[in-house]
Amino acid sequence: MSKDEQEMKKEQGLKKVYMDYAATTPVDPRVVEAMSPYFTEKFANPLSLHQFGQEASEALEKSRDVIADLMGARPNEIIFTGSATESNNLSLKGVAFANSGRGKHIITSTIEHPCVLSSAKWLEQRGFKVTRLPVDRYGLVDPGQLEQAIRGDTILVSLMHASNEIGTIEPIRSIGEICAEKGVYFHTDAAQSFGKLEIDVNTMHIDLLTASSHKMYGPKGAACLYKRKGVKIEPLLHGGGHEFGLRSSTHNISAIVGFVEAAKLCKKEMEGEAGRLTLLRDRLIKEILKMEGSKLNGHPTKRLPNNTNFSFAGVEGESMVMLLDSYGVAASTGSACSSTELEPSHVLLAIGLRPQEAHGSLRLSLGRWTKKEEVDYVLEIMPRIVERLRTISPFKGWKE
Amino acid sequence: MSKDEQEMKKEQGLKKVYMDYAATTPVDPRVVEAMSPYFTEKFANPLSLHQFGQEASEALEKSRDVIADLMGARPNEIIFTGSATESNNLSLKGVAFANSGRGKHIITSTIEHPCVLSSAKWLEQRGFKVTRLPVDRYGLVDPGQLEQAIRGDTILVSLMHASNEIGTIEPIRSIGEICAEKGVYFHTDAAQSFGKLEIDVNTMHIDLLTASSHKMYGPKGAACLYKRKGVKIEPLLHGGGHEFGLRSSTHNISAIVGFVEAAKLCKKEMEGEAGRLTLLRDRLIKEILKMEGSKLNGHPTKRLPNNTNFSFAGVEGESMVMLLDSYGVAASTGSACSSTELEPSHVLLAIGLRPQEAHGSLRLSLGRWTKKEEVDYVLEIMPRIVERLRTISPFKGWKE
Repeated sequence: MSKDEQEMKKEQGLKKVYMDYAATTPVDPRVVEAMSPYFTEKFANPLSLHQFGQEASEALEKSRDVIADLMGARPNEIIFTGSATESNNLSLKGVAFANSGRGKHIITSTIEHPCVLSSAKWLEQRGFKVTRLPVDRYGLVDPGQLEQAIRGDTILVSLMHASNEIGTIEPIRSIGEICAEKGVYFHTDAAQSFGKLEIDVNTMHIDLLTASSHKMYGPKGAACLYKRKGVKIEPLLHGGGHEFGLRSSTHNISAIVGFVEAAKLCKKEMEGEAGRLTLLRDRLIKEILKMEGSKLNGHPTKRLPNNTNFSFAGVEGESMVMLLDSYGVAASTGSACSSTELEPSHVLLAIGLRPQEAHGSLRLSLGRWTKKEEVDYVLEIMPRIVERLRTISPFKGWKE
Repeated sequence: MSKDEQEMKKEQGLKKVYMDYAATTPVDPRVVEAMSPYFTEKFANPLSLHQFGQEASEALEKSRDVIADLMGARPNEIIFTGSATESNNLSLKGVAFANSGRGKHIITSTIEHPCVLSSAKWLEQRGFKVTRLPVDRYGLVDPGQLEQAIRGDTILVSLMHASNEIGTIEPIRSIGEICAEKGVYFHTDAAQSFGKLEIDVNTMHIDLLTASSHKMYGPKGAACLYKRKGVKIEPLLHGGGHEFGLRSSTHNISAIVGFVEAAKLCKKEMEGEAGRLTLLRDRLIKEILKMEGSKLNGHPTKRLPNNTNFSFAGVEGESMVMLLDSYGVAASTGSACSSTELEPSHVLLAIGLRPQEAHGSLRLSLGRWTKKEEVDYVLEIMPRIVERLRTISPFKGWKE
């Protein structure tokens, strides 16, 4: 470590800068407060007939009303689940099992979250056919290509609203229109966008939508699947028949109440927060792109207000994350889910990066507590980090 | 309402007596305290490489160690899930899908929790064969009958440790021995017993075990599946590859930490608490059986220390629950899951009750905060409640 670096680190002391909001968010203290009575007092099972149960049942149905309202749905179209992973598994497998009589073809893309891709793969091993649409260099799906891919036996199109890795926002309104026209169910994974972008399941022609609590300052353990009335799915978790018989398991009321409080706060603060984060995001992008050998991944404007994703030639992503961490900055190479894998990101490969470029990616995702000073601090240390890693890198040919 | 009753209710004022601990328990305040830093500070994704993530990862692995130790397992044999329903679904479907090459026969019983029974039924619709063992009048499975039911193509035996409705404790050690001898996987649903009864997966020859947090003063949203090393299962939730690739979904660290704290407290206090509850339970049983037309369901001694389940001739269970509720007492007819159904309990039918008897059942389940005075209060009001309901009941022939 050079003297400069040592001074830098000393200066920042015990600084902790969290820039991994896309992986998971802290729970907003206001949400913790809303949840608090549901652990020790209002803890009952909403299916119980007694007043303890009825109190929980009221909280549950009120929660359903709020979440439904936030996306233009009806309350009985909201199925509470335990996670976005579960909602996505339920969408794909649930639709597949319930509609295999109509057809066995599913369309998704090459850049979906692993839980969508691996659910599709699992179905493929069980006789379903899967088309994975390519994306352009920004990560955008082409609605025209989707239209051509829909066949007589297509039962489901599952395309994400916004990418968890590169932040690109997909044209889901056009996608929804095409699906509606062709009479094919449209599922969108909105884990990264619900609470950040406006969503209306009707004008967007969405039949199934995944939303997640812990990506929007709510607790882990709560999520939902919007399922349009009439859409046929089979449950993934069989049992006591909770959630209209579609998702059994004792309701996690404290988490659901937290999810709803978080969603209300996001809705209330959405416009202002999107503006604030977009400014910080664009400053980060503008300054980092001034660095030699740096490159933005994802779309320059059609992207989540809190997402940045860069590649640095000749630099390995994991090393960058580790060195940033030693400076107190929490970042990631892409999704947290794949952080323990050695494979390059499937999303970066899909947008045309070469494997060595895909290995050199860095995702800095911002959130509710990101301050301008934190962005400045990251901008200050990034050149040193990249320079240092290039010095020790065995791969020297990046400039050529 | 008679004058006596009015006085009684006035006397008890705003009394709230929770006797539905088998449905769900309040979270112990010590558990809430242990969970508290994991919402706003230690909230990160344990798969993240940075220090926030590593802190969460350490909490996760420490949790795994503790849970493993409490049942005599190794840490890498513990799969954290979101609920007992999920663990049971994962056991049955996971074993079925992963072992269908060896055989397609599954053995369970007629008194299992709905999530086991409906998972088995779902598999039956997909080409698996299911044997449902009968039980005796106490709800006990006969190990000899199990031995005879095991065939060459049997891949799994799933029998609960203790009944959620009638509290009967099954002879799982003998069952485990038989399964081990025959080379068949043995899964036990210990949702009601883990934390209340001693469990050792080795001496009991258990291959898969379901344990639940919210039945033992931990939060909802956490549970686990013990899976003996070498037992083959397929995941139910596909995705990022968490939990050894067997259960994807961002870890719910706060809930897991709460589950573990709850489990530690149960272990520490198990012996004393079992003794205390057994005394209260037996007092409840002894006094209620003095009432005319009352009957205990389940085994008189081989039963959970906190469970009582009665039938009252000529009285409808739901009405009893409602009237008890008006006196501030929370009870249930059987399981909370089936409280919204009009069908009589499948467990009570399985132990030989006639449908009208099965409709007249009442489960009073005790717990950590049940006081002797509360038991006395219930014993005081029960005769009036039963008498009142018999007066208005259309079914007068119960004495004949």
